[in-house]
Amino acid sequence: MSDRKEFRDLATPAAAREAIDSLDLSPEPEAVPLEDARGRVLAERIDAAIDVPGFDRASMDGYAVRARDTFGADEADPAELDLVGAVHAGAAPDVTVDAGTCAEISTGAVMPDGADAVVMVERTDEVGAGGDTDRIAVRTAVAPGDHVMSAGADIAAGARALGPGTRLTPREIGLLSALGVDEVPVVGTPRVGIVSTGDELVRPGEALDPSRGEIYDVNSTTIAAGVEEAGGEPVLYPHAGDDYDEMERLLRRAADECDLVLSSGSTSASAVDVIYRVIEERGDLLLHGVAVKPGKPMLIGRLDRRDDVDAPGSSAYVGLPGYPVSALTIFRTFVAPAIREAAGRPEPATAAVDGEMAVAERYGEGRMRLMPVGLLDPDDGGLPLVYPVDKGSGATTSLVEADGVVAVDPDTEYLDRDERVSVQLFSPDVRPPTLLGVGEDDPALNRLLDRLERPRYLPVGSREGHRRLRDGVPDVAVVAGPTDRDVEAVDLGGWSREWGVVVPEGNPDGVTDLADLVDGDIRFVNRSTDSGLRRSLDDALADLAADRDESRRDLTDRIDGYDLTVRAFESPARTVLAGDAGAGLGLRETAERLGCGFVSLGEQPVVVRAASDRADRAAVEELAAALEDLGDAGSGLGEGDGILADLPGYSRNSRNDP
Amino acid sequence: MSDRKEFRDLATPAAAREAIDSLDLSPEPEAVPLEDARGRVLAERIDAAIDVPGFDRASMDGYAVRARDTFGADEADPAELDLVGAVHAGAAPDVTVDAGTCAEISTGAVMPDGADAVVMVERTDEVGAGGDTDRIAVRTAVAPGDHVMSAGADIAAGARALGPGTRLTPREIGLLSALGVDEVPVVGTPRVGIVSTGDELVRPGEALDPSRGEIYDVNSTTIAAGVEEAGGEPVLYPHAGDDYDEMERLLRRAADECDLVLSSGSTSASAVDVIYRVIEERGDLLLHGVAVKPGKPMLIGRLDRRDDVDAPGSSAYVGLPGYPVSALTIFRTFVAPAIREAAGRPEPATAAVDGEMAVAERYGEGRMRLMPVGLLDPDDGGLPLVYPVDKGSGATTSLVEADGVVAVDPDTEYLDRDERVSVQLFSPDVRPPTLLGVGEDDPALNRLLDRLERPRYLPVGSREGHRRLRDGVPDVAVVAGPTDRDVEAVDLGGWSREWGVVVPEGNPDGVTDLADLVDGDIRFVNRSTDSGLRRSLDDALADLAADRDESRRDLTDRIDGYDLTVRAFESPARTVLAGDAGAGLGLRETAERLGCGFVSLGEQPVVVRAASDRADRAAVEELAAALEDLGDAGSGLGEGDGILADLPGYSRNSRNDP
Repeated sequence: MSDRKEFRDLATPAAAREAIDSLDLSPEPEAVPLEDARGRVLAERIDAAIDVPGFDRASMDGYAVRARDTFGADEADPAELDLVGAVHAGAAPDVTVDAGTCAEISTGAVMPDGADAVVMVERTDEVGAGGDTDRIAVRTAVAPGDHVMSAGADIAAGARALGPGTRLTPREIGLLSALGVDEVPVVGTPRVGIVSTGDELVRPGEALDPSRGEIYDVNSTTIAAGVEEAGGEPVLYPHAGDDYDEMERLLRRAADECDLVLSSGSTSASAVDVIYRVIEERGDLLLHGVAVKPGKPMLIGRLDRRDDVDAPGSSAYVGLPGYPVSALTIFRTFVAPAIREAAGRPEPATAAVDGEMAVAERYGEGRMRLMPVGLLDPDDGGLPLVYPVDKGSGATTSLVEADGVVAVDPDTEYLDRDERVSVQLFSPDVRPPTLLGVGEDDPALNRLLDRLERPRYLPVGSREGHRRLRDGVPDVAVVAGPTDRDVEAVDLGGWSREWGVVVPEGNPDGVTDLADLVDGDIRFVNRSTDSGLRRSLDDALADLAADRDESRRDLTDRIDGYDLTVRAFESPARTVLAGDAGAGLGLRETAERLGCGFVSLGEQPVVVRAASDRADRAAVEELAAALEDLGDAGSGLGEGDGILADLPGYSRNSRNDP
Repeated sequence: MSDRKEFRDLATPAAAREAIDSLDLSPEPEAVPLEDARGRVLAERIDAAIDVPGFDRASMDGYAVRARDTFGADEADPAELDLVGAVHAGAAPDVTVDAGTCAEISTGAVMPDGADAVVMVERTDEVGAGGDTDRIAVRTAVAPGDHVMSAGADIAAGARALGPGTRLTPREIGLLSALGVDEVPVVGTPRVGIVSTGDELVRPGEALDPSRGEIYDVNSTTIAAGVEEAGGEPVLYPHAGDDYDEMERLLRRAADECDLVLSSGSTSASAVDVIYRVIEERGDLLLHGVAVKPGKPMLIGRLDRRDDVDAPGSSAYVGLPGYPVSALTIFRTFVAPAIREAAGRPEPATAAVDGEMAVAERYGEGRMRLMPVGLLDPDDGGLPLVYPVDKGSGATTSLVEADGVVAVDPDTEYLDRDERVSVQLFSPDVRPPTLLGVGEDDPALNRLLDRLERPRYLPVGSREGHRRLRDGVPDVAVVAGPTDRDVEAVDLGGWSREWGVVVPEGNPDGVTDLADLVDGDIRFVNRSTDSGLRRSLDDALADLAADRDESRRDLTDRIDGYDLTVRAFESPARTVLAGDAGAGLGLRETAERLGCGFVSLGEQPVVVRAASDRADRAAVEELAAALEDLGDAGSGLGEGDGILADLPGYSRNSRNDP
């Protein structure tokens, strides 16, 4: 047993790789039917067991002859041969070509006994009139083998056809077919058990009880998909709590059944501690903690199998961090390569791309950092732009914002803007978005985005969106309501939307205007200050305060819930719908769609603004073109399928400044 | 019905693409379980149906409070609150935080009613001695929402989560999990029927009768694998002969069941003609013949479905050429893009690579040429070398020699050496070989190649190998027997092998030397002049002729079968084994392995020679290193696992010139 004290100093990333390399997770080779062999890797060399073709095959239409009978023949002095029969493709010859004779033959047919060459039909004449030809004049000399593809000429029995380690793509499947191989010896698929820990985790599809703090299990499915992509077979095990006996039972079952066991899901220190104890007592702990952000809680070791299983011994074990992006980062960096290696798969050519930092990034913790980054595909053929995402928030959305990781050396404290970096993609199928937008969340915008190819949009709110546009990463910001115009940008177009107070159906409290919120006893749900809706609300409150000769603060202090804010545009309405509030800041569109009442407080413009230096990018121009084609519910001028057509409270209000 | 005359002029490749684009092969969208969704493409936008997290969640260990109760608190003047209980992660809170109270809370736990912020434990003190703390001193002011991740802060209900057309990689699977989605609406998988034509075709795994001219069906399995790779579901139909009624029945059944029907396999004009008639009479022929080599026999059209099927109307139809490389070329160029489009898949990033012609190539047929090429991966970071393969031979082996095609414009009559070309790979999984070797076929060489990473070896014989080495494409040539030394090259090493005459077991004809073949009445099987074995035989015959004061021709004329040659090193021995000949040119190794008798005629060197300008390539150096480690059966000096260890008649004879 190791002493836990050994692990006080974190291992280097190189030591972690070494520890994983020392684990054996290679499965036994297996035989699969040819139709399932695509993408697999040959476990051994395949030599041809048969000749291809399996017979001497005519490669021209003409006459099968003995070459010697044509020696000396030419145009002036043809050789005349007796015609003794005919051979067609797909049939066994029923003639023999003796000296002085020949047989008609078609392409692909089997050469008859006695014949050793074919004379093309163009170099022959039928001798004698009528259909009853029985002699053929050959006007050329041929050598033995002429126009004959001899048995084995394509592939000869005994020849090396495919080497071990060959990835089977369609063409290799074709070659195996030609050889008649219908069962292919391939490298086995490593079985990878995934044990997710944490009482609060619920499998997707099952009922969730948020009041108990339950959340859906993200890591198990993410890692399972990653295992599959790397060439392994994922096996999901039921969730384990922090109980030692349960955890031990589960980990040992997974070890019995798998080549590699991964645990993931819980960020709780006690769960990690329990796993640590199980590995120490029922296996062999090689490494605890790696000097890489986010690898601190990583465990590497072996788990003993029971003695009575098919393959006793031990399975490999790796413990992953709990946050989704961290788990995927550590999986991609340390575990996926080991699975690929065991599955005989090469690293995909698209596993990494070079890019250029869009912003500077400072970091100085003195350990290697696996920095999650987003990418933006330039359409000028240049390198993709790279920007850091997920500063340790553990947010699930970062999963989709991050395209991969940049490994930043412990000695590198600063990455400059424009610095070239290599990005290890989270999947070889990841394609950087063609457009990066940030800003207000809006239903019309959602529809607009559906019309573009591979856009990425981060609903960070109008204010934050404007700020990010200024910092130079996104192409466009979507800004709703009154905005500061201090960001240099190009307005691409926009629309306007009706905002106000969402109330329960039938408006039971009789809300008619903003004053009712200030003066009445209504529980209100506000939006955060990043939201353009909030900005419009605050401006309206300022106007009301001025009318009353009070300060805005005087008014907001009297609104119950003014300070409790939510981020998403639907959340206040949903809170009202759930009966947890009497009024919420929101859109007419949301109120009508959810079947709530609505008190209109005005219209606000939503404007799409492009960074000045990005306005001529193809993706931005595509967005601008889509903005020209919005349709308009209010004016009746729009087309039926315009995106504004059935959105209540929306109207076209392009390029109108607030 | 179209008139066949319309098609006398071949269509342009652009018109062929247009015709295929006009066909509808898109399947209906479908819903798949989350665990099967990886790699699929979203059919519609996914908006979040729930908030993530679904509850206000403490993001620190500490105390849940009403923020107002802390206003004004600081180190000098803490606020004291009554402790009313505790809330842990994964459990429903059973306390309410009223004014002047607080509750202990842990990270991830649900915020209790009444509380709107968390104070970090580090900024608090327990008031009162002993364990019975019932008051907490808060040494800081917090604002509403501090250290609380509010419901929906990660993903808000109603927010746009993933857009239509999104390829689902592990991270998107993770996001869907977080949203509790367990069934995913994805673009359907186009069903592609493959009808192979030709009476002579046999499915791999079934018995083959070469005497009837049967060959294994290569195209069906190759194209099926290609369909799968492009995102379609291949459906193989039984082989059809050239009979109209059978063909019609089969094609209509495939049309009823599939989105696209492909026919392939036969090179016979009559089969193509029958299909042509079926399409004309039971569908709609759009195009017959494309001005592209090898696209001449290509057909594009529609096949009517019966009226009583689920989805009446018609299926798309494309007829592919018969030769395997041609079929795969046309499939990859015209059909795979249409399948990918229907499946919603982007073209893989590795679908094409740039390369540099290794040799000049002249072509002038005035139509576009899809030239099959092989690639060689340079290890210097430069472009891969590109060389033409398969000059229309229809050989199956070309499938594995060709990595992709270069589309050569009709106006381009000449491609220069070093000219840059774009290669459309036959599969995104194709990886160019790291080493290209040509020359003699040899069992020791086969084992040696197994030790290298991704070698490609073409067993073209010693003479042809030497010729190709001189022409500058391969890295190495393997030359057996006496050779001309006029090719500038570096000898990397080699071995020697015992050659002679393979005879039936027990040597029934009592063959003892070469004279017995000349003077006796024994049917002999020779090797082609490309083979190093043949060269050694001819030298031995020349010596015998000199001894007898005759010409070599005098002797060879008397050997029955001297002129009938086979390409592969095992074929003469297999002919002897089959009882079809009394003697064959071959190796002691082959004779002993197949259980034949053997009459030794000498030893010949096998030398591995590298092109002078390639000798320092990493792959060539790796080969040279492997040659140092051959082992040696004869001398006893070799290691047990050396590749010569159990090869009869082999010995180490490195760098010995003949």
